[in-house]
Amino acid sequence: MRALLGSGGVRTEQRKSLYIDEMRRHFGEVDSILFIPWALNDHDRYLELMHERGLNAGYELIGIHTHVDPLAAIEKAEAISIGGGNTFRLTWELQRSGAMEAIRRRVLNENIPYMGVSAGTNVACPTMQTTNDMPIVQPTSFATLHLVPFQVNAHYFSGSTWVQTSEDDFLEHFGETRDDRIREFHEMNELPVIGLREGSYLRCHDGVVTLIGAPARLFRAGHEPIEVSPDENLSSHLKY
Amino acid sequence: MRALLGSGGVRTEQRKSLYIDEMRRHFGEVDSILFIPWALNDHDRYLELMHERGLNAGYELIGIHTHVDPLAAIEKAEAISIGGGNTFRLTWELQRSGAMEAIRRRVLNENIPYMGVSAGTNVACPTMQTTNDMPIVQPTSFATLHLVPFQVNAHYFSGSTWVQTSEDDFLEHFGETRDDRIREFHEMNELPVIGLREGSYLRCHDGVVTLIGAPARLFRAGHEPIEVSPDENLSSHLKY
Repeated sequence: MRALLGSGGVRTEQRKSLYIDEMRRHFGEVDSILFIPWALNDHDRYLELMHERGLNAGYELIGIHTHVDPLAAIEKAEAISIGGGNTFRLTWELQRSGAMEAIRRRVLNENIPYMGVSAGTNVACPTMQTTNDMPIVQPTSFATLHLVPFQVNAHYFSGSTWVQTSEDDFLEHFGETRDDRIREFHEMNELPVIGLREGSYLRCHDGVVTLIGAPARLFRAGHEPIEVSPDENLSSHLKY
Repeated sequence: MRALLGSGGVRTEQRKSLYIDEMRRHFGEVDSILFIPWALNDHDRYLELMHERGLNAGYELIGIHTHVDPLAAIEKAEAISIGGGNTFRLTWELQRSGAMEAIRRRVLNENIPYMGVSAGTNVACPTMQTTNDMPIVQPTSFATLHLVPFQVNAHYFSGSTWVQTSEDDFLEHFGETRDDRIREFHEMNELPVIGLREGSYLRCHDGVVTLIGAPARLFRAGHEPIEVSPDENLSSHLKY
């Protein structure tokens, strides 16, 4: 199984450069990549933006929405990539179209490379339950692709949220922190959660999970969270 | 119908003073309030904290978890208050216990006063779909108490999230803003959404909705969002 899971927030030149390097290393010599833009509302615009901003990394991205039969497109795909947006909308569409099972089978049984960013990373996990998104639509189930045996919290950050009130002024916001939310997740669930900071990646290759780009925070039920370093193989921490 | 809906973030003395004033004005001369702590994991500790921090406003709060029969407790309650925490967990428990229907009937048909804060405000809406919380458990449905005909986004703030990296240093975070999330909600739903800032309240009294404490931002599908001022009657904006 080959998956590259990104946190999102690819908004600086340095982050973009790492994104392109990792994406090219991951997909290698494939001719085209089936791109699933379902987490956003405007699919054509999403594909345009990916090309305009160079986030196709030189590959031809083909939007699944341009195919009459999305399941046939998945069957023929050399590689699959799922982008960010709203994870509830993405999961709902993957479920109702039948794409969830089709993608899972191609990636796990036929070993085609998968890339996810943000929402596309959330759905690579056993469930979408560590998303940060608003539940704008109700999927039948929170179960997702289960390509990896752990959860990821994308766009992870430590500490409080601050709100900018003027050029130099920031006000602390008292909603739950990410750590609070993940602790609440572990009050009701056992799966380990990787808090993946913006601009960083998990390279998952046949059971070896390598962290790229920034430290991550690893949360396991009943344990204190720990910081892990880039280039570390996380696999040994992810047994549960 | 009488509901007082708070955004949460009652962490300064000024905010606490407003909270107590509004709560006393709302509940008046009732003897005790049935408090539902199901959004948090540790119910006893939640009740203790409410009393320790003076957030009972002088009333006796009785935890629903101390009753053998929660539905009987709802039937006898003079007043009901639901506190904050995780909205998915709260909704799940309200549904599986049968409390959702029982509370709805007492507040809408028998006119007992209801107060919600944060998650307790989310569930007063037609659905819990404008929560900020992590989906740590799957409720049967996203439908909630529907005491009011609009949605509230609690802990609302405008603009980006910033993360503190040292005493004076803040880093912009690129996850979706609240406005992005609410726009996405309106890509799939019609209900108006009130972005309610921390420390502020909606006093809902037989169709009159008064904003207390801070400006709010009102989002309607197909319209630009507008700012509304404290003490304004929002009812005319909430037709849809």
